[in-house]
Amino acid sequence: MSKNPKTRPLMPKKEYAKQLPKLRSELLQTQFALRNSGVSVVLIVSGVDGAGKGEVVHRLSEWLDPRGIDTQAFWQLSDEELERPAFWRFWRVLPARGRIAIFVGSWYTEPIVERAFGRISKARFETALDRIAQFERTLAQDGTLILKFALHLSKNDQKERLRDLEQNPNTHWRVFPSDWTHHKLYDSFTSAAQCSIQRTNTALAPWFTVEANDSRFRDLTVGRILLESLRKRLAKTPAAKSAETGTKARPAPIKSDQEPLLDKVDLSKTLSRHKYRKQAAKYQGELSRLVWQANEKRVSTVIVFEGWDAAGKGSCIRRITEAMDPRLYRLIPVAAPSDEERAHHYLWRFWRFLPRSGRFTIFDRSWYGRVLVERVEGFANQSEWQRAYGEIRDFEEQLVEHGTVIVKFWIHISKEEQLQRFKKREEIPYKQHKITDEDWRNRKQWTAYESAVNDMVAQTSTRNAPWTLVAGNDKKSARIQILKTVCEHLGKAL
Amino acid sequence: MSKNPKTRPLMPKKEYAKQLPKLRSELLQTQFALRNSGVSVVLIVSGVDGAGKGEVVHRLSEWLDPRGIDTQAFWQLSDEELERPAFWRFWRVLPARGRIAIFVGSWYTEPIVERAFGRISKARFETALDRIAQFERTLAQDGTLILKFALHLSKNDQKERLRDLEQNPNTHWRVFPSDWTHHKLYDSFTSAAQCSIQRTNTALAPWFTVEANDSRFRDLTVGRILLESLRKRLAKTPAAKSAETGTKARPAPIKSDQEPLLDKVDLSKTLSRHKYRKQAAKYQGELSRLVWQANEKRVSTVIVFEGWDAAGKGSCIRRITEAMDPRLYRLIPVAAPSDEERAHHYLWRFWRFLPRSGRFTIFDRSWYGRVLVERVEGFANQSEWQRAYGEIRDFEEQLVEHGTVIVKFWIHISKEEQLQRFKKREEIPYKQHKITDEDWRNRKQWTAYESAVNDMVAQTSTRNAPWTLVAGNDKKSARIQILKTVCEHLGKAL
Repeated sequence: MSKNPKTRPLMPKKEYAKQLPKLRSELLQTQFALRNSGVSVVLIVSGVDGAGKGEVVHRLSEWLDPRGIDTQAFWQLSDEELERPAFWRFWRVLPARGRIAIFVGSWYTEPIVERAFGRISKARFETALDRIAQFERTLAQDGTLILKFALHLSKNDQKERLRDLEQNPNTHWRVFPSDWTHHKLYDSFTSAAQCSIQRTNTALAPWFTVEANDSRFRDLTVGRILLESLRKRLAKTPAAKSAETGTKARPAPIKSDQEPLLDKVDLSKTLSRHKYRKQAAKYQGELSRLVWQANEKRVSTVIVFEGWDAAGKGSCIRRITEAMDPRLYRLIPVAAPSDEERAHHYLWRFWRFLPRSGRFTIFDRSWYGRVLVERVEGFANQSEWQRAYGEIRDFEEQLVEHGTVIVKFWIHISKEEQLQRFKKREEIPYKQHKITDEDWRNRKQWTAYESAVNDMVAQTSTRNAPWTLVAGNDKKSARIQILKTVCEHLGKAL
Repeated sequence: MSKNPKTRPLMPKKEYAKQLPKLRSELLQTQFALRNSGVSVVLIVSGVDGAGKGEVVHRLSEWLDPRGIDTQAFWQLSDEELERPAFWRFWRVLPARGRIAIFVGSWYTEPIVERAFGRISKARFETALDRIAQFERTLAQDGTLILKFALHLSKNDQKERLRDLEQNPNTHWRVFPSDWTHHKLYDSFTSAAQCSIQRTNTALAPWFTVEANDSRFRDLTVGRILLESLRKRLAKTPAAKSAETGTKARPAPIKSDQEPLLDKVDLSKTLSRHKYRKQAAKYQGELSRLVWQANEKRVSTVIVFEGWDAAGKGSCIRRITEAMDPRLYRLIPVAAPSDEERAHHYLWRFWRFLPRSGRFTIFDRSWYGRVLVERVEGFANQSEWQRAYGEIRDFEEQLVEHGTVIVKFWIHISKEEQLQRFKKREEIPYKQHKITDEDWRNRKQWTAYESAVNDMVAQTSTRNAPWTLVAGNDKKSARIQILKTVCEHLGKAL
């Protein structure tokens, strides 16, 4: 309710009481429709101190079914959060499809506060906003409805509101010294907020500025916008979805100016057993030293293994982990996603496993499944896998910016070599499990996979996260190439 | 391989090569059978430094399908781990059904190290071991196969092994100064380990001491024990399971000496609107101060809400959260479990949400579902829900020992009051979603639920985690009772 006797309430009590029941039942109905829609909702409540962010949250959890809502406030970072890229804490709490997450504070908070206090330049502020816009686009394209509310209070209203709260013994506790500090910086805060709104107000993730001086008007407005946006989004879904999933035809290959890259790999390399042993010992020794050094320097590392079926990923990975203290690494074999994973953006399950400072995560298959098997098998439609290149570049860029070392391997073997290995696997009892009908099916798609790999390498080999194509026909030389490459990357970074 | 030229290898190379292929294929077959068995495996690899814990892990991940294995080493605690009860870090990484977790280090590590260094008394050491035995029983009864390996090396062998490693430039890095410190304490370590083995060597979670001086013998022995134990466990499963799930008949009520407790609740209490407003403001004010005080003192709090359908849990919870800064609490509405949750012990999903220091978690329904709905509906069989009382007491005891404040509410209303509210809900459009066929079905089971509630309260009201039965017929007085109770509990703890 307005605490300012001079202003007439925008929403008289009677009018509010009249409108509320209808809004509530419609909101609920829409929330139930949301449940099985495949759409998730991120609702950001932001605004100056005293504008009533907490009250809006309470109102919404009263109006909606609280079982479908996750409220999340962002505050002090834990060390587990500090040791990962900045967006890790947000990825952790993104809502599953069918659910609504209400965020008090968000990815905007830190940049705006830093900017208002003049601790970052305009340029850096804008870079942070562009990263946010990119992040929101990634979520929105995956089906997340993003609604961002800026609760507005004039400088004078804020002052009066804080005073009113302070003078009432029952609400006195709500006012913090920092609120008055922020009040003094009202203009800086408002200007930073305005700038962030302008730069990130997109069709996919729109901002709504809501007058917050009259609490009834404020809450009803937020509720209405939520209702309307949900309805629009849900009306669009089925059609939009079927149209998209309809294009499950084999995608046209991207025309690349580059030579097909796999062809350049020299598969004739071999290594004698003697040389292999000597070099393996040497590089494993070096790797173990580097691994501890990385731990001391608190540098985290991500190693990605992709490759043809039977290319020998498993045994190459073991040559790496043999040189590592088990306390320092985690091996993530990537198989079918769990339902929690399926209910989120495809990158979510990989964010989950990012290493802490000084630790290693080794992915046996990875997010590149999106542009490999999902592309070839049509599990992702063309716009999805084409978009993925940019999403993945952005993801890895965040890792690099955080200081994480990324090493990515594609283990290449010839089609003939694969055939030999498939046959051999069928002969050895304890290797039979490694060869399934699926492997034979995948083999028939060799050419399609070949294009997908070439595109992947062309699109996602960046300066700080380059691909290493490993000549895999000779297992010994492949293992040495991998050990050596990991050592080189770590050596450079440390 | 044995590095001691004086000892003859227990497992000659030829013999090893002969036996290995069969073991590997049998291990794999058994692992595949495990996949859909509902059984999870925890395999603990422990032993003195130099015994080759890491090598055993590598061997197992070579022999088994690595996609079904999670290897986990426990080392430095993160702050997120430090801020929860000690077992939180272990619950976090328990394997899902069908999977094998290999732990290097475990819940035994800390007690043994502390005891070996003489930093804890024998009595405290034994208490820690009993807690471990209880924890392992909880997992085993839920279907987890627990295998614990102690790799044994004599004092002399350890010395030679460490020296050998140190002298070889390629393995030099494997030896830490702490290894030599531990070597000097060999006898203390061995004695603490022996004591822990004796005290926790149960049929449900047996220990296996394996001679580690000959690496081939060591690895083959571990592999064989794993194979044999897996086979035995899997042979038992279907029979054992069907026998258990066969008893889905309505359980016999526990005969309790105590008066039925719900009957003692005085449902005639009322509160005038005026008094309610005054008291609500008072207690909400007090609560907000206490919440910040708890945050400063880094005390964490868990509040549990249970109650009849339509008892008003939601609105009571809102009266609590209104007084809390959104950054300080998390509300967890408990509905159907996700598949990740279903694949673990029923307490796993609640461990997930335990609050950090200085924070609050409010559970809207909780682990008590096990002894309420799951008991009454027969989702848990009699031995499962009867066992749950002890499991829950133990769980809450761990919270209390950690310093967490626990407040538990059962909101009681009369059967007539429930009928009134059901009818009213059917009339108000935005409340219709709150009343479903399930509610009417549950209502028919009123008497069964009544017994379940009385048993629950009798069995799980402990000094530090008592139940508060709330008189819920009058909503206003219920809310005040709840606010006041939370304040009292916090006040006492701070």
